[in-house]
Amino acid sequence: MSQSHKFFDRASIDNAAILLIDHQIGLISTLGESMNRAAVKNNTLALAKLAKAYNIPVILTTSNADGPNGPLMQDLVDMFPDVQVIDRVLINAWDDENFVNAVKKTGRTTLIMAGISTDVCLTFPAIAATADGYDVYGVLDASGTWNALIEQAAMLRMSQAGVKLTTWVSLSAELQRDWSLPTGQALAQTYAEHFHEYSVLMDLHNSK
Amino acid sequence: MSQSHKFFDRASIDNAAILLIDHQIGLISTLGESMNRAAVKNNTLALAKLAKAYNIPVILTTSNADGPNGPLMQDLVDMFPDVQVIDRVLINAWDDENFVNAVKKTGRTTLIMAGISTDVCLTFPAIAATADGYDVYGVLDASGTWNALIEQAAMLRMSQAGVKLTTWVSLSAELQRDWSLPTGQALAQTYAEHFHEYSVLMDLHNSK
Amino acid sequence: MSQSHKFFDRASIDNAAILLIDHQIGLISTLGESMNRAAVKNNTLALAKLAKAYNIPVILTTSNADGPNGPLMQDLVDMFPDVQVIDRVLINAWDDENFVNAVKKTGRTTLIMAGISTDVCLTFPAIAATADGYDVYGVLDASGTWNALIEQAAMLRMSQAGVKLTTWVSLSAELQRDWSLPTGQALAQTYAEHFHEYSVLMDLHNSK
Amino acid sequence: MSQSHKFFDRASIDNAAILLIDHQIGLISTLGESMNRAAVKNNTLALAKLAKAYNIPVILTTSNADGPNGPLMQDLVDMFPDVQVIDRVLINAWDDENFVNAVKKTGRTTLIMAGISTDVCLTFPAIAATADGYDVYGVLDASGTWNALIEQAAMLRMSQAGVKLTTWVSLSAELQRDWSLPTGQALAQTYAEHFHEYSVLMDLHNSK
Amino acid sequence: MSQSHKFFDRASIDNAAILLIDHQIGLISTLGESMNRAAVKNNTLALAKLAKAYNIPVILTTSNADGPNGPLMQDLVDMFPDVQVIDRVLINAWDDENFVNAVKKTGRTTLIMAGISTDVCLTFPAIAATADGYDVYGVLDASGTWNALIEQAAMLRMSQAGVKLTTWVSLSAELQRDWSLPTGQALAQTYAEHFHEYSVLMDLHNSK
Amino acid sequence: MSQSHKFFDRASIDNAAILLIDHQIGLISTLGESMNRAAVKNNTLALAKLAKAYNIPVILTTSNADGPNGPLMQDLVDMFPDVQVIDRVLINAWDDENFVNAVKKTGRTTLIMAGISTDVCLTFPAIAATADGYDVYGVLDASGTWNALIEQAAMLRMSQAGVKLTTWVSLSAELQRDWSLPTGQALAQTYAEHFHEYSVLMDLHNSK
Amino acid sequence: MSQSHKFFDRASIDNAAILLIDHQIGLISTLGESMNRAAVKNNTLALAKLAKAYNIPVILTTSNADGPNGPLMQDLVDMFPDVQVIDRVLINAWDDENFVNAVKKTGRTTLIMAGISTDVCLTFPAIAATADGYDVYGVLDASGTWNALIEQAAMLRMSQAGVKLTTWVSLSAELQRDWSLPTGQALAQTYAEHFHEYSVLMDLHNSK
Amino acid sequence: MSQSHKFFDRASIDNAAILLIDHQIGLISTLGESMNRAAVKNNTLALAKLAKAYNIPVILTTSNADGPNGPLMQDLVDMFPDVQVIDRVLINAWDDENFVNAVKKTGRTTLIMAGISTDVCLTFPAIAATADGYDVYGVLDASGTWNALIEQAAMLRMSQAGVKLTTWVSLSAELQRDWSLPTGQALAQTYAEHFHEYSVLMDLHNSK
Repeated sequence: MSQSHKFFDRASIDNAAILLIDHQIGLISTLGESMNRAAVKNNTLALAKLAKAYNIPVILTTSNADGPNGPLMQDLVDMFPDVQVIDRVLINAWDDENFVNAVKKTGRTTLIMAGISTDVCLTFPAIAATADGYDVYGVLDASGTWNALIEQAAMLRMSQAGVKLTTWVSLSAELQRDWSLPTGQALAQTYAEHFHEYSVLMDLHNSK
Repeated sequence: MSQSHKFFDRASIDNAAILLIDHQIGLISTLGESMNRAAVKNNTLALAKLAKAYNIPVILTTSNADGPNGPLMQDLVDMFPDVQVIDRVLINAWDDENFVNAVKKTGRTTLIMAGISTDVCLTFPAIAATADGYDVYGVLDASGTWNALIEQAAMLRMSQAGVKLTTWVSLSAELQRDWSLPTGQALAQTYAEHFHEYSVLMDLHNSK
Repeated sequence: MSQSHKFFDRASIDNAAILLIDHQIGLISTLGESMNRAAVKNNTLALAKLAKAYNIPVILTTSNADGPNGPLMQDLVDMFPDVQVIDRVLINAWDDENFVNAVKKTGRTTLIMAGISTDVCLTFPAIAATADGYDVYGVLDASGTWNALIEQAAMLRMSQAGVKLTTWVSLSAELQRDWSLPTGQALAQTYAEHFHEYSVLMDLHNSK
Repeated sequence: MSQSHKFFDRASIDNAAILLIDHQIGLISTLGESMNRAAVKNNTLALAKLAKAYNIPVILTTSNADGPNGPLMQDLVDMFPDVQVIDRVLINAWDDENFVNAVKKTGRTTLIMAGISTDVCLTFPAIAATADGYDVYGVLDASGTWNALIEQAAMLRMSQAGVKLTTWVSLSAELQRDWSLPTGQALAQTYAEHFHEYSVLMDLHNSK
Repeated sequence: MSQSHKFFDRASIDNAAILLIDHQIGLISTLGESMNRAAVKNNTLALAKLAKAYNIPVILTTSNADGPNGPLMQDLVDMFPDVQVIDRVLINAWDDENFVNAVKKTGRTTLIMAGISTDVCLTFPAIAATADGYDVYGVLDASGTWNALIEQAAMLRMSQAGVKLTTWVSLSAELQRDWSLPTGQALAQTYAEHFHEYSVLMDLHNSK
Repeated sequence: MSQSHKFFDRASIDNAAILLIDHQIGLISTLGESMNRAAVKNNTLALAKLAKAYNIPVILTTSNADGPNGPLMQDLVDMFPDVQVIDRVLINAWDDENFVNAVKKTGRTTLIMAGISTDVCLTFPAIAATADGYDVYGVLDASGTWNALIEQAAMLRMSQAGVKLTTWVSLSAELQRDWSLPTGQALAQTYAEHFHEYSVLMDLHNSK
Repeated sequence: MSQSHKFFDRASIDNAAILLIDHQIGLISTLGESMNRAAVKNNTLALAKLAKAYNIPVILTTSNADGPNGPLMQDLVDMFPDVQVIDRVLINAWDDENFVNAVKKTGRTTLIMAGISTDVCLTFPAIAATADGYDVYGVLDASGTWNALIEQAAMLRMSQAGVKLTTWVSLSAELQRDWSLPTGQALAQTYAEHFHEYSVLMDLHNSK
Repeated sequence: MSQSHKFFDRASIDNAAILLIDHQIGLISTLGESMNRAAVKNNTLALAKLAKAYNIPVILTTSNADGPNGPLMQDLVDMFPDVQVIDRVLINAWDDENFVNAVKKTGRTTLIMAGISTDVCLTFPAIAATADGYDVYGVLDASGTWNALIEQAAMLRMSQAGVKLTTWVSLSAELQRDWSLPTGQALAQTYAEHFHEYSVLMDLHNSK
């Protein structure tokens, strides 16, 4: 059962690429549940800042950005001026030659993916890349979809196909590994800005 | 572990049949949770319209339609005047020769199933068809059952047996693959009528 | 405590006007919780159909329709071609002379109001009209807002100020009073289209 | 503020009548949320058994029993063979002369009401009877409606108009007053059959 | 509207008595929702410790302690060896002469009550004492009942009748008024033992 | 991956035994969430009636019935006067020789188990019997435990170890297979008494 | 019933003061429910920015800032360098002479209050100021507490005593009144930063 | 599929070690949802008492105890004066040589782990130890994290990698195996102190 060994592998600063798929403002407007839009944007920015902090290659892509889905979140555009946003007509980003080539060019074999919606823009390329031998992490809280049943179905489908499910704080710790490494400071800054429960604790600690 | 390869396969317009099992008005009346009846009917019609849009063969079946379960939803009868509804006394549709023959006649190997209830009318044939080598998708939101525990048990049992769990919007995107294909227009129309969060976005886009 | 007598009065076909406030597609897109957009649109159309069925005067208004709030739901525009939509820069519709004049011209003293959002577009004119002596009904499910706490605060504030809280099915029954009246048929048709739990029951009854 | 004194009055075996409004099987089928149908039937039967145990007059009424709403729950018919079920075309039972006359004939001034739905069949006569000077109790858990927002709106509207909100176990204790009275045995039997949390405790106590 | 002035009055160490009604182990065993039994016991002990800390008179009562309801929580018995537990056959503690005499003997006019269940053992005496001119506080989280609907009905009924609704931490602060008073230490100790969110904060503060 | 074939097998009247583990009144009293005690008792009785209707062997066992866990539910004792209840000191029923011998004596290879609590009394023997080659069904809604997290952990652990998760209505349909078989009548009677959503539908159907 | 007239009055830029009570980092750390800390901080900053935008006087106060409650949120300190933070030992801010004098010095009669916790730091001064004749608004979502029952009790108690319950977006609209006034720009900026559902809509509108 | 055999193995007093990872007061303060801090502390102490009762080796570790995470819960320090707390800068405890050596020194092959947070401090070493051939139990309710989505993702990821998910009461029964063993008394004492639903039952039993 050699495939299961993958579940013991880890994402690292050296083996990972971060793929942000269809974080477009029209799609974000379709999300629901009161805090969800704020949370998805917050968590996506946190994930993007991890890429910055750890110098991990980032790939940005959109789907029909001229249509209702709308343009990419402006914050992502601003953070990665040198990354060309790949606009697609193919729904599954993994079907898009430009996207796959961009991934290949990174040389990375661990793919950290987030997408809106979870059940389409994340699930499809996550499974397809797994099929091609990549070790894929689906970052559920930097993704989002329309209701809990859709999310649960997508989670079980990805898990069944061998995708690892995670969330951004957990992933940040997996990448950092060692709090004493120099990247720890950038991570702490990201926590201060985006990990709200921990930032309150940092404030308390600093007030001593 | 050859079976797991199936999880990398995809449903397509060319390999799929859509099987709507026991969407009978009596059974629908038993569903609960405030919006559930409306949602199940909405999502079932959306799934049926995908079949129309993509020219995917449809099979309709009922269980004891003369008893409490009642007749098939009239909307489905009206949409598919040429499809003969297979009424059964066998609970598991896959035990019914007429049903299985109808499936075989389609020549399709990917079976998209929805049923009321999820834990009986969907789960049983989904697992049985999987046992016979089909690649089965269970469309959870065009199905429905009586409470969350029943639904979760059915989801875990299907997943354990190799059924892929999905929901109708995710499936529609898996079938469409490429927004520029001519079927995209029918899909957009289905979204306008049944995918409520996205239809609001389409209205906004069109109001520009 | 003469004010409390109002709580014993009833809305009727002869004393009521229906005021739909800011059912604009941009505002609808901001709503959350998975089914909410669909439910608010469904219930608002049902309320509008009651006005048609009972020949109750309707007033339509928008707030900054050229800005992000966007135009009125097209279905409402189509249903009431002779009603001029009053666009406002004043947030509280009751502060707008055109709106209040339109209300006065109806000669009605019972005002059935719905608005998006519940806490602003419904709450403000509901309290202001109550202050001016009208008997005001707030139709909560043809309104909508961003989370449960906001809704609860608005409900308690309106109730405290003497607004009657209701929902559209309850209101439809209050207006109909007597199932044998000729308007019963139009009401049944509205139930078939918008009151999903009851329409399933009607289908079952008709299938006998 | 003489009206508020009513809130200090109590329901008793001698001053109360029990009014069961529209507990029809069609209406029960429209209820949702997984356990609701079972709970409403259970609690309604419990309330009916209180009437038996305490010899409190009962009035039964239906709305359009030949239509989709369907006949009264058979259990209620069987329990009260001497009570004539008053079928109405008027929605608000308090508008129906037969119903009000039946109430008046009891000579009771405290009216314990339950109805399906809460927002129509309970709320309307509860407020109307309050307006006529009766002390009205709305038994919420022997009533039922379609979702939580409808229920909350009905609760706040009834409370605002001076109806007392209660549930069947609370009411049973208000009527019993003194555990040592002879009716206590019938009450204990009703608890054993319908008050599930307490019946487990009784079993434990009896197993000693 | 002189009665409303009561809502501006405050509970104090000098005007209050604490009445713990039917905190019997059988009744506690009937409570539900996973943490509820633990929470009710925790909050009741906290309330009892406030009485100790502030030297506020306490009255303890049970209902049919020899029957299924069972004996009083042993912790309460142990804490107040000098308080005689008043066992009753009358359900409403306010109907029991011994209980009311015990209250009168305290000379206090503000009654802080908690009871199991909320809808019976708290609601009935809370309203009855209000009718007799006492300023009554219902401590909801040192009380408990069987489901959310029962609790909401009881809350609205008590509020409608003029009972003030509160919870134990809020009440503790109302009694303490001034953190610099000597009773502050006992309060801090009670927080350390029973107010779990705050005790974590105290631990953090002390670890500096 | 031969083990997975088991997931395609089915429970039948001929291959199954029903094992009811620790449905003791003390343990039932520990359950929470408002309707849970009622639901677990209802579903357990339904499962027991299936055994009667289908003439499936039943095994009853208790754990320390003289201690706090208390005696078996009296209804089960009454239904199976010829079944000797096996009382154990071993927690995992599968560790008890009497229990395993009783199972072996049935000659059945498919074991339908329910237990209170889900995470102990069901999970442990379910996994142990699976290890011994049995095809095990865990009937989640005739079992019960203390909160949702405990239940989810138990569900995932059983599923991971190869136990099939199900609920009683689903199981009843798996056993019945064919509505036209003579056992259908007993099943319908069980639905009328225990499957509340469906019994309302049956009433509606019969009222035609 | 002159007091009820207050419910028809409105908060305005000219009559209001904003009182932020005990937004201390220790207290914030005690809040729970996943998004709560983030939401309370977000909403408090939004309320503070309204004060800036509308030039409304602000009063800041803390309770035992040297103890576990900790210092005021640094963002508030930074935003109002000229406002002296009033630290108290008296729990109810309205008991503190410095605080009340600061309120009086503003000359404002409408007091917009938020506090952590809702049930203590908001409820107590809100009721006390109401008793002194002020028109008090409790901003629930810029406040926070430990669980839903505590919050509901506090809401009903404040409402019963005549406090108006509101939330920050609703309040912002009440103060703005007219979108064409010059303050509208600052309000739009606050919405872009803190009203997440609306900021997505603004982004969509601007992307046209 | 030899790995699956592990799912049939059991934890026992002889093969297990208990590893408590990062139960630090700062981290506990970041947890949310009203009862969570209390529950996590309660369940962690219960797990620690099991170690005492069964004489199972315990390993304690912290992460950056001088930073915001803070010191270990004092109760754990007090319970295990002879256990040296291993403070780490490596996030995954399994990466820390001291920690792994301490585990090896126990000679145990079944590792019972709990950690705060679930998704980092539990998930990472649980998977890493599984990769090294240990049989790992993740005790979910003696762990904790920030919201339900994070918890579900961690549960599915651990389950996918072969970690067994459990909760403390279930684990206590797995270790005890036989109620008649002498350790049963210590277990009963632990239940009396930490298993609140069962302790109420024990009180009832003892009151007979």
